Amino acid sequence: MPLDTARVIDQLRRLDAETSNEAGAQRIAWTERWQAARAWFRNECRDLPLESEVDESGNAWHTLRGRSETCLVIGSHLDSVYGGGWLDGSLGVLGALAVVRRLWETYGADLPLSLRIVDWADEEGARFGRSLLGSSACSGTLELDEIRNSRDEDGILLRDAMRVHGVDLERVKDSRHQLDDVAAYLELHIEQGPVLERGGIPVAAVTGCCGAARYIVRFKGFPSHPAATPMDARQDALLAGSHFIVDSHTIGNRHGGITSIGYTKLSPGKMTILAGLCEIVIEQNHFDGAVLAQMEAEAVARARQIAEMCHCQVEFEDLWRIDTLRFDPDLVALAAGSVSELTGSDFTMPSGPLHDAGEMVRAGIPTAMLFVQSLRGLSHNKEEDTRVADIETALEALDRLAEKTMTKLSRELV
Amino acid sequence: MPLDTARVIDQLRRLDAETSNEAGAQRIAWTERWQAARAWFRNECRDLPLESEVDESGNAWHTLRGRSETCLVIGSHLDSVYGGGWLDGSLGVLGALAVVRRLWETYGADLPLSLRIVDWADEEGARFGRSLLGSSACSGTLELDEIRNSRDEDGILLRDAMRVHGVDLERVKDSRHQLDDVAAYLELHIEQGPVLERGGIPVAAVTGCCGAARYIVRFKGFPSHPAATPMDARQDALLAGSHFIVDSHTIGNRHGGITSIGYTKLSPGKMTILAGLCEIVIEQNHFDGAVLAQMEAEAVARARQIAEMCHCQVEFEDLWRIDTLRFDPDLVALAAGSVSELTGSDFTMPSGPLHDAGEMVRAGIPTAMLFVQSLRGLSHNKEEDTRVADIETALEALDRLAEKTMTKLSRELV
Repeated sequence: MPLDTARVIDQLRRLDAETSNEAGAQRIAWTERWQAARAWFRNECRDLPLESEVDESGNAWHTLRGRSETCLVIGSHLDSVYGGGWLDGSLGVLGALAVVRRLWETYGADLPLSLRIVDWADEEGARFGRSLLGSSACSGTLELDEIRNSRDEDGILLRDAMRVHGVDLERVKDSRHQLDDVAAYLELHIEQGPVLERGGIPVAAVTGCCGAARYIVRFKGFPSHPAATPMDARQDALLAGSHFIVDSHTIGNRHGGITSIGYTKLSPGKMTILAGLCEIVIEQNHFDGAVLAQMEAEAVARARQIAEMCHCQVEFEDLWRIDTLRFDPDLVALAAGSVSELTGSDFTMPSGPLHDAGEMVRAGIPTAMLFVQSLRGLSHNKEEDTRVADIETALEALDRLAEKTMTKLSRELV
Repeated sequence: MPLDTARVIDQLRRLDAETSNEAGAQRIAWTERWQAARAWFRNECRDLPLESEVDESGNAWHTLRGRSETCLVIGSHLDSVYGGGWLDGSLGVLGALAVVRRLWETYGADLPLSLRIVDWADEEGARFGRSLLGSSACSGTLELDEIRNSRDEDGILLRDAMRVHGVDLERVKDSRHQLDDVAAYLELHIEQGPVLERGGIPVAAVTGCCGAARYIVRFKGFPSHPAATPMDARQDALLAGSHFIVDSHTIGNRHGGITSIGYTKLSPGKMTILAGLCEIVIEQNHFDGAVLAQMEAEAVARARQIAEMCHCQVEFEDLWRIDTLRFDPDLVALAAGSVSELTGSDFTMPSGPLHDAGEMVRAGIPTAMLFVQSLRGLSHNKEEDTRVADIETALEALDRLAEKTMTKLSRELV
């Protein structure tokens, strides 16, 4: 039986229709609509002999037992941001189901390995701000202290929202045992950026997730009266911050990395008085950890020079940093080969954003990932879209990658 | 009788003690505390034969009749911002009282002109956002449409707050008749900037109020995913805005003018997504109107170049603009001469901020103004301060300027 890609497209559209409103997808983790999406998914699985369970951190696992306990996991996440699209996450879960179905139909009782579909809990962190929640609990990298006091905008504690869904926050890391027999992890996801579209490439193997350094740069000046204060007598924190935004982007460009700043806070933040405080949250990304460290050192040094130039003070506060998470070279080669057979292109790329697949790297599991082109690079938006032909190519590539991986793993079992 | 400067210092301290809380002065226009300050002031006037009245726009006038109806007005404002200082405005009103007292004690029934003290209503615009309210109503430049729907933060309409104080918003411009016999206007104010302190100059004559152009520059980009979007594929409105902030300051410096930006608005304004919108409120100031026009033209042209460079759009929205308001050259010369007799310095300077004195220029009244040094350039802040010796010098200079002006005007009457 061939892979039923048309069925996946139909499923994606039905799921979207059932869990969206006019603002887009609303499958926010730890809400009723998210649970409804998961119930809908279990129903889509009903004609396969899958064992379904939800683990201690809320991840949903659907297992097809093969001749070995050793398993290949394929998955992604069904949860969405507020007003999300029809593909982010759900493509990877429904794609996994199609591939498992095709392998079941092909191998039946001869399936050499167990196959598992995983639907990670709360990949987006949309409601409580902690993304990759379920996969990082499972990989063991989550720090419970980070989330013990997390609340949503209505003041509801994450722990209370979890409890409604049968999850005990204190026990989420017990889900680690799910990885005991996992020999590899595969994930298909939309790119969420413009790289493949610009290159005219439908699908690509991903080499890993770029390292990231996210920190606050806080310029402190003095809130002088604007028109009364000559420019050379000012301690203008906004002017300092603006210099830093411009120069930190130059640093990113010089190193072929990425600098992103989407948030600044000003105080007082009024036209009638200069800013005494300008707080910037910067994220820098590079696939090469040494270059990322250099980018950060240059940005910090430049911030100090700018502060002096603008008669301000500057301080730094680490928010978050992560090393580059490199996918398994053998699996990346299988992924690139699968894509190349279908498209003629063996283009590979690193991911700027993190994915659940990165948590599997951190758990020590050989991992690979495929990106399918996103039109206009859009995601986290109801306008998110991908050509149906490209989705079909991506599903075929995932299917080939899964079979090649299963074959490789079953050889290694012998 | 000499000018009683010690009495003024004592009055300023008592007024501050009676109308401040731990956050500073709270003589907000159209509040009970403001009315209490005015009642306190009338009590301070009680030993002089002054006729007190409040006009249609809430300005308080205290008139000492001389041998002519033609009058010299000296004044400033008793209202303060929320958490203001002990000198901004009140120095000019209490200084005027001291000078009128000294001239009455010196000339008595021989006073050649009438002298009037004015305490302008709502100079600060602290509660309803429209500064120079009373003086611009009186000069005729106020547009009623601007303020008909003005509300404070609690949603109270300006018109209703005014009514409590006996002022009918629709009739405020009827106060114009107060200027019928006014031959000159003088005002002493703190500098509110660091120019005099940096020059070691206690008091200076002011040449006028700088022209100003205040407008919104709105960069529109696209809210892309930060880490997923290579920097050359972005339409980053914050990066565009930051370039503009830096470059518009360079333009100000190149022309010896002032560029001030204290407010920006970002949307979405989150770390996890690039800004699709960056709105900046810029104010440019220069004493020479032609140079100001050139500064604005260069900033607009540069904003368009930056928008193109950052793949954004840009639009502009005028908020407010005013021509330079030049004080009367003869009166400025008398002011500089008065200061020079006391300090040896005839330094003059333009004012960046507007003052009620500017409205008198707009009303066609010969006007002059004195600035006294502000320590650290501070104002609109309870830390606002000026050395007592400098206040005394400033009061002496105002006294000399008033007498010289009176003499000049009375000669012209003949």
